[in-house]
Amino acid sequence: MGAVTESIQRARATTASYSITMRIYAGTDPRVIGALAVKVADSGGITTALDIVDSQAHSLVIDLTCSASDAGHAQELRDAVETLEGVRVHKVSDRVFLLHLGGKIAVQSKVNLRNRQDLAMAYTPGVGRVSQALFEHPEDVSRLTIKGNTVAVVTDGTAVLGLGNLGPGAALPVMEGKAALFKRFADIDAWPICLDTTDVDEIVRTVELIAPGFGGINLEDISAPRCFEVEAKLRDRLDIPVFHDDQHGTAIVVLAALKNALRCVDKTLPEARIIVSGGGAAGSAIVHLLLAAGAVDVTVSDRPGLLRRGDESLSPQWRGLAARTNPRGLSGTLRDGLQGADVFIGVSAPNLLAPEWIDEMAEEQIVFALANPNPEVDIYEATQRAAVVASGRSDYPNQINNVLAFPGVFRGLLDARSSDVTTEMLISAADAIASVVGDEQLNPSYIIPSVFHPEMSETVAKAIVSSVPKLAPSTVPPSAGPWPGVDS
Amino acid sequence: MGAVTESIQRARATTASYSITMRIYAGTDPRVIGALAVKVADSGGITTALDIVDSQAHSLVIDLTCSASDAGHAQELRDAVETLEGVRVHKVSDRVFLLHLGGKIAVQSKVNLRNRQDLAMAYTPGVGRVSQALFEHPEDVSRLTIKGNTVAVVTDGTAVLGLGNLGPGAALPVMEGKAALFKRFADIDAWPICLDTTDVDEIVRTVELIAPGFGGINLEDISAPRCFEVEAKLRDRLDIPVFHDDQHGTAIVVLAALKNALRCVDKTLPEARIIVSGGGAAGSAIVHLLLAAGAVDVTVSDRPGLLRRGDESLSPQWRGLAARTNPRGLSGTLRDGLQGADVFIGVSAPNLLAPEWIDEMAEEQIVFALANPNPEVDIYEATQRAAVVASGRSDYPNQINNVLAFPGVFRGLLDARSSDVTTEMLISAADAIASVVGDEQLNPSYIIPSVFHPEMSETVAKAIVSSVPKLAPSTVPPSAGPWPGVDS
Repeated sequence: MGAVTESIQRARATTASYSITMRIYAGTDPRVIGALAVKVADSGGITTALDIVDSQAHSLVIDLTCSASDAGHAQELRDAVETLEGVRVHKVSDRVFLLHLGGKIAVQSKVNLRNRQDLAMAYTPGVGRVSQALFEHPEDVSRLTIKGNTVAVVTDGTAVLGLGNLGPGAALPVMEGKAALFKRFADIDAWPICLDTTDVDEIVRTVELIAPGFGGINLEDISAPRCFEVEAKLRDRLDIPVFHDDQHGTAIVVLAALKNALRCVDKTLPEARIIVSGGGAAGSAIVHLLLAAGAVDVTVSDRPGLLRRGDESLSPQWRGLAARTNPRGLSGTLRDGLQGADVFIGVSAPNLLAPEWIDEMAEEQIVFALANPNPEVDIYEATQRAAVVASGRSDYPNQINNVLAFPGVFRGLLDARSSDVTTEMLISAADAIASVVGDEQLNPSYIIPSVFHPEMSETVAKAIVSSVPKLAPSTVPPSAGPWPGVDS
Repeated sequence: MGAVTESIQRARATTASYSITMRIYAGTDPRVIGALAVKVADSGGITTALDIVDSQAHSLVIDLTCSASDAGHAQELRDAVETLEGVRVHKVSDRVFLLHLGGKIAVQSKVNLRNRQDLAMAYTPGVGRVSQALFEHPEDVSRLTIKGNTVAVVTDGTAVLGLGNLGPGAALPVMEGKAALFKRFADIDAWPICLDTTDVDEIVRTVELIAPGFGGINLEDISAPRCFEVEAKLRDRLDIPVFHDDQHGTAIVVLAALKNALRCVDKTLPEARIIVSGGGAAGSAIVHLLLAAGAVDVTVSDRPGLLRRGDESLSPQWRGLAARTNPRGLSGTLRDGLQGADVFIGVSAPNLLAPEWIDEMAEEQIVFALANPNPEVDIYEATQRAAVVASGRSDYPNQINNVLAFPGVFRGLLDARSSDVTTEMLISAADAIASVVGDEQLNPSYIIPSVFHPEMSETVAKAIVSSVPKLAPSTVPPSAGPWPGVDS
């Protein structure tokens, strides 16, 4: 591969997630600015900002911000810039780390505390009357406290993104990011709870004990199979909704995207032959939701190959999956399962799928390669062979991103004061997301809307609210406050 | 008592914590406005706002906001206003409840999430690099996450203000108020954690498990004697500071106020005879801090009378207190203990102290009657007899208010990355608060600054920082990040 092709390849791979700012001392030769930009470009970087910070008689101080593809590449960019005569790099700042200094969320007071009168209303003695009233009318806690708009983002740090068991402290930046997304996309107040235990019963008990202050529980990055047990037990014990985003958020968005992909190729969910690669948290939830939404022919592939009922060597989790899937009793490898399949959904590991296997699928194939950051098959190669391709990547069309679902899902759950999350709600959320792409917009490169689509979370929230059972006594309490003038 | 005196008495007792807004429909007679204000005043209310909301040909719509002393008084004000001809009260809104609708705090995102680049830095994939780095360098979690500025406000709802065991849900408004105060006075991000258990070991274990996401623990409104055990166990197990505000916050402010009160009357702490009424959470902490600060002659009074060492009928907690106090072996009632005492500190219950007993104390008596909302002795009566009087009330000088201490204490603990709270720190915080009142300002009506004193929390924080042991490896980690340009 020639040097130019290589730099283009690299430029394709640069990302804002690896953005650096070099503080550069240079002479006043006016050509230096142009030379810097050329050096960065020749080395495969993308210059996104160039500021003259200071200009003196014999020197310039320049902040050059550019995207690199990884840490080694960032070092190469620095070295390349320093080959220029009279140029010295004083220091390199990593913008992602700078952004994280001090954390990404903060608490905001919604009440003014300017004087004694304010204190007397928001704190003692005034607050005592509110507490006394809530003691007498516990059904009003959601209305008169943060509980009605608050979600705990709970993790034990055992499955942080694709990085594995990093522990609760290292998981915190991810949970903060999640909380920031909750705020940005659904105006929900979410707070990270990073647990220093991996014991299922301790996790369950801890969440149960902190639940009075929250209106919902979002489980996050808890490894399988413990996540299933944690979620099931919490749903059983709590009167607020519990949602494991890695499972159900992913499943909702996959179902939404698949419905639209099938529309593109004039196929239907009940008739589609579907292979799911990966029987973990996401895979299990996807299978569950696909079957509930009407899919019939779903087969799961994991390390033992295609999961089949009656295979006693499987783990209990896989046996449970096998019992509900693979209606044609397929056996063998992933490649065997792909023969004649209409849909491939990968939530597994990088490069499990050779591009040429796509040709062995049915006509008008649909390929969702969702492993992150590196998908099951090279996305570019897949787009050359399949009719519709989706991935978790933001640099290709059709990004399957949970941000499409979870903010609206919780907005709806909180608005409806739902005590549960039902499969019906998940399907209605998927339908809502799919419906945002109109017939005239739908095409193989646009099966799923952008996460920045302005109506997304509200549309999902409405769908959730409309599928929450009405007048369930424990979820929609009558207004029972003894105080006048406070209407819900 | 005549009607006028009674309305004056009442007006004295009105409070912003019982502020109502009446929406009034009235005729257009211009005298109606004046008549309304007079009616409210005659009935002991205080009008704080009067807005004409709408004016039509034959009617006015008026919002009249006024303070009442309690719910019955609010009803009386309404009835009084409605005796006016042509005046009808449409509805009465309770401002404190209105203020609490939806809760008092919110989450704020500190990062922009405008586009994919922003998402890629604050969330996946960029955040993954930060998590990976924190996994390798856990000592940097405080710098690159919210942990460095975050406090959990933890309660089990068993001792909510003076109202008793209201439970975790009803305690939430108080914890939210506390979080709002943390933000307002020290820019700390505090989040309420209301626990659905009263079991000491469960409380301890739960706080231990959620600790990774917090830089400090503020225990709040947990009943004695469980609060002592919870605090001691947590201090033992956690590497972040644990502070029970009802104990230590109160003790700090009492010590500060007492030092200045003694300055006023030219007495010293070591020579002062001190009676503490109430051997609960606050009383125990006050005794501990007074002794540590140099007091010698401290005696505690509670239900059994004056606590004496060797009395085997006392509870373990009281025996512990008795072992360190009452050096002259006094016995009998509170009144016996007051004979010749220099200082009375009440953290007990209303009206335990008859005003005339103050005359039996030593000359230049100091009376701190801190029971809330109703003090141990009528404050007005006390001011007629004692040299210096302080209370928990905001309608008299010298309010002993924890808000003077806890924001600055935690600001200092977080800034210094302290892993502990030591008695030395508490004393230095008290000294800092006392020092804000200069010699030229000090007088019996100004022994303690206002909670709104602009330098308060910074002064306390500096005192705390200066008393944190330097270079303790577990508390002040060296900058060890592998990323350039991120300096602490």
